[in-house]
Amino acid sequence: MAVYTEVTDGELADFLREYDIGEMMSLKGIAEGVENSNYFLQTDRDSYILTLYEKRVDPVDLPFFLGLMDFLAGQGILSPTPIHGRDGAALRQLCGRPAAIISFLPGVSPRRVQLRQCAPLGEALAAFHTASAKFDQNRPNSLSVDAWRPLFERCAARAHEVQNGLAGEIEAELGFLEANWPTDLPAGVIHADLFPDNVFFLHDEVSGLIDFYFACTDFLAYDLAICLNAWCFETDGSFNITKARHMVRAYRKTRNVETEEMAALPLLLRGSALRFLLTRLHDWIFHPEGALVTPKNPLEYYRKLRFHQSVSRPGELGLD
Amino acid sequence: MAVYTEVTDGELADFLREYDIGEMMSLKGIAEGVENSNYFLQTDRDSYILTLYEKRVDPVDLPFFLGLMDFLAGQGILSPTPIHGRDGAALRQLCGRPAAIISFLPGVSPRRVQLRQCAPLGEALAAFHTASAKFDQNRPNSLSVDAWRPLFERCAARAHEVQNGLAGEIEAELGFLEANWPTDLPAGVIHADLFPDNVFFLHDEVSGLIDFYFACTDFLAYDLAICLNAWCFETDGSFNITKARHMVRAYRKTRNVETEEMAALPLLLRGSALRFLLTRLHDWIFHPEGALVTPKNPLEYYRKLRFHQSVSRPGELGLD
Repeated sequence: MAVYTEVTDGELADFLREYDIGEMMSLKGIAEGVENSNYFLQTDRDSYILTLYEKRVDPVDLPFFLGLMDFLAGQGILSPTPIHGRDGAALRQLCGRPAAIISFLPGVSPRRVQLRQCAPLGEALAAFHTASAKFDQNRPNSLSVDAWRPLFERCAARAHEVQNGLAGEIEAELGFLEANWPTDLPAGVIHADLFPDNVFFLHDEVSGLIDFYFACTDFLAYDLAICLNAWCFETDGSFNITKARHMVRAYRKTRNVETEEMAALPLLLRGSALRFLLTRLHDWIFHPEGALVTPKNPLEYYRKLRFHQSVSRPGELGLD
Repeated sequence: MAVYTEVTDGELADFLREYDIGEMMSLKGIAEGVENSNYFLQTDRDSYILTLYEKRVDPVDLPFFLGLMDFLAGQGILSPTPIHGRDGAALRQLCGRPAAIISFLPGVSPRRVQLRQCAPLGEALAAFHTASAKFDQNRPNSLSVDAWRPLFERCAARAHEVQNGLAGEIEAELGFLEANWPTDLPAGVIHADLFPDNVFFLHDEVSGLIDFYFACTDFLAYDLAICLNAWCFETDGSFNITKARHMVRAYRKTRNVETEEMAALPLLLRGSALRFLLTRLHDWIFHPEGALVTPKNPLEYYRKLRFHQSVSRPGELGLD
């Protein structure tokens, strides 16, 4: 939950005057979201989201993120559209932070993933990949395989606080992934963080994908691996093969997946598990005292990694 | 900021089926509010607030609070209206907690109080008092003069952690207020917590009073004292006599204030300052580690108390 920056009335009024979106009727901080400060903004014309980008987002990347959102909206992907001000700019400053107003999307994120939501998610992900392939900007994935070792090295000395022997296990996995990570799979702009809270549903249809602030250029199948890890494990730690099969089957109906991508999936699943294990471990160890956001448990992704280490072919996951 | 209870999809769907308010289109946790979990709920018909009442609200009091809100709406006071379910009930259970849906009010709370907002606030407070006088239920103020000593005794041993000598000063003030607290001023149902974040404005007019979960039976002028303390001090600790004068003048235009009430105001201001000093001190000392809500600084109200200790007549505050 997060509102890090309190906006004063005067600053807000000045900011809104830059837009032709009607008169402000209501502004409420939104509790969800851990990276930025988000406000639900109602004017006499429509509903919007006002986002202030906090420290974790590099301002240099914002034109890429907002440009991508603009592009996706133009491609018919259900995603938030940046609102451009009277001067044409979508990105400006509020309270000394980069800030933007984006369109409000109806829909509700699943608090607990239902089987019937997995095929629509797979289809929406494939449609997003098909559209984003035509986007002409690049942003290297700053949290891909090359970034994992430096991240690990910052956490290694304190990893035992989370679990005994964790550093050694991560070290071994890192070595394996660095040696075996694919280099030539189909790539494009991926979402890279499409957890259930970033997907809205209405009537069991996807009504929106949100939060493109990790989007980057990487293997498309890696995005699918991230979703499989985020959507198909049950709360008891078991992997739901049926959910995975629904998601992948729907994905493949919409986008043609190559044999190499399917074969790489077990490895990409391990990589995705390690990536979230490492960032959660980092946040767990280094989160400031009294922070508003409770860090997520790194061990959830440790257990997912352990599961995937026992898998070598997609058929073992019901995926072939 | 607060969403203490995470509502699951199934529980929510069952809950909403009890109401005839259309189909859910969006649900977002609201960051504001420290007592309850609040969600902004949009259906295909209208906008609502869904509130889950957390531990700090005594469920026994909820029929009083919701009954008052129903009554006020009927009297034309701009305040949230409880939505009654298909069975007529406004109060039910969700996730094991008492819960209610109330109407959504447009408007924005002042983050920083402007002079031009103080007269509308005074007028709205007086209109509320005039209406609530006709409400036929009672709820004793559980945070009035009788409650202050027990509250102090729970904090006394650790008050020095906030400021050296604080316990002694509170002890002396308590003795003074207990000996001098008025007994026969005009009373009725007061809001008792009408801070700026509980008042919405649109075009410099009050568009709504919210959060009636401290409402109780007490002296009407005590409510005015609470507002003067909450609205008329500047961030540098100075008391803004002009703001106070605007508020009280507008209040008196709408409700006939007796001479005894005006004379008691300096004392009521001291009492109100002590009440918030004590509850903030308590929350400061006893807030759980890792709590989502940062406790408010008790010393803000210590300084207000010190200011009022130097005042004996309302004329010294510009109020006569």
